[in-house]
Amino acid sequence: MASLQCSPVYKTFIRQLSTQHRTFRNITAVHTPVLHKSFSSSSRIMTAEKILNGRNMNSQVRKAEYAVRGELAIRSETLKTELAKGAKLPFKRVVGCNIGNPQALDQKPITFFRQVASLVEYPELLKDENAEAAAKFYPSDAIARAKLLLKNIGSVGAYSHSQGIPHIRESVAKFISERDGYPADPSKIFLTQGASAGVQLTLEMIISHNKVGVMIPIPQYPLYTATLAVLDANPVPYYLDESKQWGLTSKELQRAYDESEKMGIETRALVIINPGNPTGQCLAEDNMKEIIEFCSKNKVILLADEVYQTNIYRPEDRPFHSFKKVLKSMGPKYEGFEMISYHSISKGMIGECGRRGGYFECEGLDDEVMEQIYKISSISLCPNVQGQIMVDLMVSPPKKGDPSYPLYKKEYDAIYNSLIERAAILEKTFNSLEGCTCNSADGAMYLFPQIRLPKKAIEAAKAVGKEPDHFYCMAMLESTGVCMVAGSGFGQVEGTAHFRSTFLPQPELFDDFCSGIKNFHADFMNKYRE
Amino acid sequence: MASLQCSPVYKTFIRQLSTQHRTFRNITAVHTPVLHKSFSSSSRIMTAEKILNGRNMNSQVRKAEYAVRGELAIRSETLKTELAKGAKLPFKRVVGCNIGNPQALDQKPITFFRQVASLVEYPELLKDENAEAAAKFYPSDAIARAKLLLKNIGSVGAYSHSQGIPHIRESVAKFISERDGYPADPSKIFLTQGASAGVQLTLEMIISHNKVGVMIPIPQYPLYTATLAVLDANPVPYYLDESKQWGLTSKELQRAYDESEKMGIETRALVIINPGNPTGQCLAEDNMKEIIEFCSKNKVILLADEVYQTNIYRPEDRPFHSFKKVLKSMGPKYEGFEMISYHSISKGMIGECGRRGGYFECEGLDDEVMEQIYKISSISLCPNVQGQIMVDLMVSPPKKGDPSYPLYKKEYDAIYNSLIERAAILEKTFNSLEGCTCNSADGAMYLFPQIRLPKKAIEAAKAVGKEPDHFYCMAMLESTGVCMVAGSGFGQVEGTAHFRSTFLPQPELFDDFCSGIKNFHADFMNKYRE
Repeated sequence: MASLQCSPVYKTFIRQLSTQHRTFRNITAVHTPVLHKSFSSSSRIMTAEKILNGRNMNSQVRKAEYAVRGELAIRSETLKTELAKGAKLPFKRVVGCNIGNPQALDQKPITFFRQVASLVEYPELLKDENAEAAAKFYPSDAIARAKLLLKNIGSVGAYSHSQGIPHIRESVAKFISERDGYPADPSKIFLTQGASAGVQLTLEMIISHNKVGVMIPIPQYPLYTATLAVLDANPVPYYLDESKQWGLTSKELQRAYDESEKMGIETRALVIINPGNPTGQCLAEDNMKEIIEFCSKNKVILLADEVYQTNIYRPEDRPFHSFKKVLKSMGPKYEGFEMISYHSISKGMIGECGRRGGYFECEGLDDEVMEQIYKISSISLCPNVQGQIMVDLMVSPPKKGDPSYPLYKKEYDAIYNSLIERAAILEKTFNSLEGCTCNSADGAMYLFPQIRLPKKAIEAAKAVGKEPDHFYCMAMLESTGVCMVAGSGFGQVEGTAHFRSTFLPQPELFDDFCSGIKNFHADFMNKYRE
Repeated sequence: MASLQCSPVYKTFIRQLSTQHRTFRNITAVHTPVLHKSFSSSSRIMTAEKILNGRNMNSQVRKAEYAVRGELAIRSETLKTELAKGAKLPFKRVVGCNIGNPQALDQKPITFFRQVASLVEYPELLKDENAEAAAKFYPSDAIARAKLLLKNIGSVGAYSHSQGIPHIRESVAKFISERDGYPADPSKIFLTQGASAGVQLTLEMIISHNKVGVMIPIPQYPLYTATLAVLDANPVPYYLDESKQWGLTSKELQRAYDESEKMGIETRALVIINPGNPTGQCLAEDNMKEIIEFCSKNKVILLADEVYQTNIYRPEDRPFHSFKKVLKSMGPKYEGFEMISYHSISKGMIGECGRRGGYFECEGLDDEVMEQIYKISSISLCPNVQGQIMVDLMVSPPKKGDPSYPLYKKEYDAIYNSLIERAAILEKTFNSLEGCTCNSADGAMYLFPQIRLPKKAIEAAKAVGKEPDHFYCMAMLESTGVCMVAGSGFGQVEGTAHFRSTFLPQPELFDDFCSGIKNFHADFMNKYRE
C-alpha cells in the first residue's frame, strides 16, 4: 500500500476506465436474453447504414460505465431466467449482492410507511363512513398522517411543486435541524427521484467545460465516474487507504488536487461518500474538519453523499456526523461555505429503492445557481409524489407514544441488528479465505475485500480479456449463483483486486450463502494454484 | 400568415429564445416567496466570491427555458399562498391553466387504477385471512391484478430491471400490437419516469456535437427547446400553419431542413407532436406518410410524441393514427426506418402526472445504440415502480365483463365527454373576444388562440421589458387568478401573439372561468384602446 501515494493515479485510473469500457462492449450476447430477444435482429444487416449508430452517437454517453448493473448483473439476470425455466444449474437461486436492494432479497418494508402509502392512493379509505372498516387494516396514526399529507398535497396524481411539496420540505428541514442542532431552510432543500438524480442534476450545474475536475474517492460508487463521463468532465481521483481502514487524509486530497492542477484541470468539487460506498468507512469528526478546511482553502465545493447515514454499525466509536453539523460547529470563519448533501429513501432500514425518492440540501450556494437548479428541476416537472411521501415518512417516522411506534421500533431494530450481525459474519467469512483480507464495515451495506489471486488465475483472466477480479466474480456467479461486483468497477490501486458484496441476503439463508462462497473460493484457488 | 414560409426563422427563433432567457433572470423577487424565503439571503454579500456562480456555471443549463413553469406559474404560486393567508385579491381562487395537470384541478382518478396502486403498497390486504374485509373496499379484479403484479414485481420497494419490469413491458407490447395491428417487441420498449424523461434520454443519445440539429414544430412544447439547450444542440424550427388548422406540410419540413443545412447544421431528428401541444391538431394519415417519406429521404430519425393519443375530440374526422402503424402500413420499402415513440400516464383520461410514468418504443434503431440506451438507463437504476404499475394499468384497463368495467367505463367516458364539452365552450369564448381567433382542438388538452393586441398594450409591454403576450397573460393572472402561458414560450411567427390555455378547470366552475376571461379581456382592450 505504501506506493499508493505516489502512483500515477490519473493515467492508471483512465486506463482502468477504458478497460471497463471495452468490457462493456462484449456484453451483447449475454445481455439480450433478459430483454427477451436480440435487439433489432431483423435489421442487423442494416446496422452500418443507420442514421444513428455506435460511431456517431454521443461519445460521452458511450464512455460512461456503471459496473453495478454491468456484465455480471446482466449475466445474473439471465441465470435467474434460466432457473425459472427449470434449467439445471449448480445452485438453486441467484443471490444479487451486486446492489443495495434490500427488498429484492425479501427485507420487509416498514409497515407504517406502507400503510400511509396505501391510504394516500385510495382516499376512499379515509372517508368517515368507512372509518370502522378501514380501522381493521390501518392504525389511527397512519390514517391521520395520510389525511395530513393529502391536505397538503391534494392528489398523488397531480404534478407537485418542482422543488418538492413545500410541506414535505418543511418536514425535511425539521429533521435536519433536529439531527444537527443547527437550523435548516426548506427553500434550500430539493426533493429528488433518489439521491442519484440529485447528484446528476447538481454535477450538471457545476460542469461548464471539459477541463472541470471533480474529486472522487477511489474506490468510488460508479455513479460518479459515469455522470462525469456523460458530462465530459474529469474525475480527479483521491485514494482511500485500505491499510488504515479505508482512511482519508487531507494530504492525499491535496496531492490529488495539485496533480490535477498541473494537468490543467480546474477542480471545482469534492465528492465524499460517508459512510463509504463500497468501503463502509465512517469518518471521524476531526477528519471531517480537515476536509472542510481543505475545500475552503482550495475553493472546492463539497458534495457530501450521506445516503447511508443511519447504516452505522459501531455507533460508539464511529457515530455518523453530518458535514452540515461539523461545518456549523466550526464557526463564522466558514460562513458562506458551499456544500450540497444528499440523502435517500433507498438505504437505511427503509430500503424503498423502487420508489425513487430522496433530497439534497444546498448550503451557501450562489443565489443565481439556486434559481437555475430550480429551473432545471422544473423541466422534469416534479419528483414522483409517492417518492416524496416516503421522504416525509423517513424524516418523520412514528414517535414514542404513537400507536404505530412499538411495531415501527421492532421492525427497525430487527433490520438494524440483523445487518450488524450479517456484516460481521460475512467479514469473518472473507477474512477466513486464503489470500483474502477484509476491513470491517463501520457503516453502509457493503464489504470490499481484497483478494490476492494466483498468477495462473490472473493469466487465465488476461487470456479472455478480463480484469482478474471480474474473472473471479464471474466464476463465483457461475458456480454459486452469487452476484458481486468486481473492484475494477469502483477503481482500486493498480495491481490489486477486490470485489464488493452487500450483506443483504436473507438471515435464514446467510449460513448457506457464506459456506457457498467458502467452497467456491477453495475450489478456485486449488484450480489455479501454482 | 403568407410571410411565414420565407421568414428568417432561425434568427427570429434564436432571438425569441434569448428574450425569454433575459426574462427568466428577472423572476427572483417573484419566485422566492414560494420557497418560503429568499435564497441564501444571509450570504448575499458573498455572492461575487462564490466558487460556483451564474457566470461560471454550465452555460447550457442557463440557456434552457421552460415557460410552462416560468415567471407566470411562479407568480401564480405566490398569489395562491397570499390567498391562503387571507390576502384580499380581485379573485377567490387561482386557476392553473398553464399546465396539463388535471388532478390539481380536482379531476378524480380512475378508481380501479388507484385500488390496485393501494393494494400493491400494502400486500397485507391481499392475504387470504383478510379477503372478506378487503372485499369491502376492493373489487375482485383489482385484487387479482394486484396479486399478478406483485407476483411479477416482488415488491414496489425494490429496484426493478433498468429497462422496466419485463411483465409490464409485455403488457405494453400487447397494447401496441392490438392498437396498431402490427407486432411490438418488449425488448424495444423502455419504461420511463414520464415521457419527458424518455425524450431527454433519447435526445442525449442523438446529440454528439454542437452542430447537430433537431427539427421541432413552432409552436412547440418547450421541453424540446429546453433539452436541446442543455445538450448544446440546434433547434431546427418548422412552422405549423395556423391558417390551416395548424397544418403541417412536407414542403415546410424540407425548407427548414435545407435552411439549417446551409448553416452547417447536421439535422438528425424530427420531433412531431401528435396530437399537437400547444396546438391540438391531429394529423391525417396521408400527412403522416409524407412525414415518414421526408424522414426517410433526408435520413432523419422520427421522434413521435404521442402522449395525447387518447385525447381525440373529433374521432370520425380526425382519428389518432400512431406513426408506428402508418409506417408499418407503408410496406417493406421502409424496413429499418428509425423511429422512437413516446407515451405517458400523465395525459389521456388518466392524468396521473404526479407519479411520473411512461414509456418509449424504439423502432429500427442500431443494436449498439439500444445497448447504450439500456446502459444509460441503468445508471439511474430504474423508473419508479408505482409509475411502471400505472403504465400497466393504462395499457391494460378493465375489460367488458370484468367487475370493475362498468365503473371504469363510466369514469372514463365522463372525463372524455366533459373534456370535449369544455374545449368547445372555451374555444367559443376565445373566438368571441375582440381581436382573438382560435382554432378548435382536434385533440390534446389545450387551445392556442391568437390575440391581436392594441399598439398601446404592445408599447406598455415593451416599456417593462416584456413580450406583449406575456404582458397580457400577466395582466390576466393579476386580475382573474387565471394562469396561462404566453405564446412566446412556445415559439410563434414573429409579430404575432398567442397564449396557451388548458381546458381543465372544473366543469362546475367553467362558466365563471369563461366569463372571468371575457370581462378581463374587455377591460384590457378598453384600457389600451387607441
